[in-house]
Amino acid sequence: MKVLVTGGAGLVGHEVSRRLLERGARVLCVDDLSLGTRRHVADFEGQAGFEFERWDVSQRDWHRKLQGRRFDLIVHLAANSDISLGQRQPEMELARTFSTSFETLRAAAALQVGDFVFSSTSAVYGAEPVMPTPESTPDMHPVSLYGAAKLASEAMISAWVENYGTRAWVYRFGNVVGEKLTHGVVFDFVAKLRRQPEELEVLGDGRQTKTYIHVEDCAAGILLAYERSRPGKTHAERFQVFNLSTRGTTCVREIAEESVRLLTGGRTKIRYGTSPVGWVGDVPRTSLAIDRITALGWKPRYDSTEAVFRAIRDHDAWTR
Amino acid sequence: MKVLVTGGAGLVGHEVSRRLLERGARVLCVDDLSLGTRRHVADFEGQAGFEFERWDVSQRDWHRKLQGRRFDLIVHLAANSDISLGQRQPEMELARTFSTSFETLRAAAALQVGDFVFSSTSAVYGAEPVMPTPESTPDMHPVSLYGAAKLASEAMISAWVENYGTRAWVYRFGNVVGEKLTHGVVFDFVAKLRRQPEELEVLGDGRQTKTYIHVEDCAAGILLAYERSRPGKTHAERFQVFNLSTRGTTCVREIAEESVRLLTGGRTKIRYGTSPVGWVGDVPRTSLAIDRITALGWKPRYDSTEAVFRAIRDHDAWTR
Repeated sequence: MKVLVTGGAGLVGHEVSRRLLERGARVLCVDDLSLGTRRHVADFEGQAGFEFERWDVSQRDWHRKLQGRRFDLIVHLAANSDISLGQRQPEMELARTFSTSFETLRAAAALQVGDFVFSSTSAVYGAEPVMPTPESTPDMHPVSLYGAAKLASEAMISAWVENYGTRAWVYRFGNVVGEKLTHGVVFDFVAKLRRQPEELEVLGDGRQTKTYIHVEDCAAGILLAYERSRPGKTHAERFQVFNLSTRGTTCVREIAEESVRLLTGGRTKIRYGTSPVGWVGDVPRTSLAIDRITALGWKPRYDSTEAVFRAIRDHDAWTR
Repeated sequence: MKVLVTGGAGLVGHEVSRRLLERGARVLCVDDLSLGTRRHVADFEGQAGFEFERWDVSQRDWHRKLQGRRFDLIVHLAANSDISLGQRQPEMELARTFSTSFETLRAAAALQVGDFVFSSTSAVYGAEPVMPTPESTPDMHPVSLYGAAKLASEAMISAWVENYGTRAWVYRFGNVVGEKLTHGVVFDFVAKLRRQPEELEVLGDGRQTKTYIHVEDCAAGILLAYERSRPGKTHAERFQVFNLSTRGTTCVREIAEESVRLLTGGRTKIRYGTSPVGWVGDVPRTSLAIDRITALGWKPRYDSTEAVFRAIRDHDAWTR
């Protein structure tokens, strides 16, 4: 199988690529290295079946560089994954989270790739959905530009399914964590504690409670549902959406305390803010219903808090 | 009140502008005249409070031309409204139905315009929603690129509400018809019958049954809900979505027969296709629940079939 992975040097992209290579697939990783790094894919360099290209897939017509090549599957993960940053830079968010999707869909059409896997997010559900939130939720009104750009991407993929006969697997992730983090709360805490071990400032009141998933479970879930679910003929059977996270949630205070315990032996003073949200556009509580993907036989190895705690330790070691 | 109307020379834009001017508002109509024509706004030219600019609002930073000007409300109607055309030209659909929205949102932020009215579509609901379809419908997976670009626009508006404190009114239109049509089934039938009165070829089997609304009712509904609904403080209270159509539906066969009766006295042979859909991405059956807007006191003057029949007569006269 020949697979094109966009965002292949990112947290999830690296892990998906690793598993694909283990299965004997040939993998072309494309990444602009704006968040991911070449070190993330260093394990694979020189390995048979692995190629890397530093391309920006938000650029119009980037797919022309691939003219004449054939792929069975595109795993499209490239995006700006720093939600709070995108909130202040709408044009950047649009280019990196939406144009990347549109241009990768154009690649799928031009290269006649039938299968399309996409990393969406729980942020598409907006501020106050029913919880745990199932995939079939009405009134999906995102509050972050990141969530909006992901929902916009989903909409385009849906039209592509009708227009080009594409088969799509859309995964709405919880907060994905692991060793090679490039952003997010664990990334921030580790970086802050290294700069200033005396005091840790937390955005918001620390009561934000979200669902986390370990990147290994996330990558395993992506491939399992892709391999096990059988797309049919109708639009609904060819545009499949799966929440992908653990059942549980973890509070920011738990993450702050564990980070401090691991990195400074508990000697850091933690200072919480007063706002219930970390920043404008933050969704302070997320919890996902994952029955659709567990019905296929997927089960996460780590629960939400295990995933985060393990990520703190591994990311700390990775960045030392 | 100062109002900026994008797509102001289109079918709906003309009617909304007319009503705003009647209320004493100052109106700046912006239109690139790709579908609308200058003749559509000829009634208003020279009238106090009316201005027209031929600008393409999909262009990056077009709002800079308005630097220093103030508006109370943006009515954003500019879009590619020819759904079947957009299905074959994804880049065009993206530019004209999505980038127009994104750049007009940027205008709202740059000019600090608090209120934003947007013309969405029943096409956001996709192929097989529950019918009549209410605004709170799960699994909105559009099958046309037009519907996808409108849903993508809605998502961005939703994030804008959170990010910039915008108050938004989103109207999901049925098929809007009237004298100054620029596209669609009535437009096509009138044009075809004029070119070839002997025979009328219908796309699809003619059994497509959709909800139609007369442009006068549509414009009245837009302004009524804008004036009567009271946005609150929460995101859900500031991002308001209304279906806007009649309760009924009309079959394409009825439209073909009435067009032939009116234009050629019934002497045309009507030839139907065999497909249940008119083109890839067509949604053959639409029916909207309109309880949300009727609860505000709005009531359409014409039912679905009255609206269409009146539009055939008026559009025929207008284009003679």
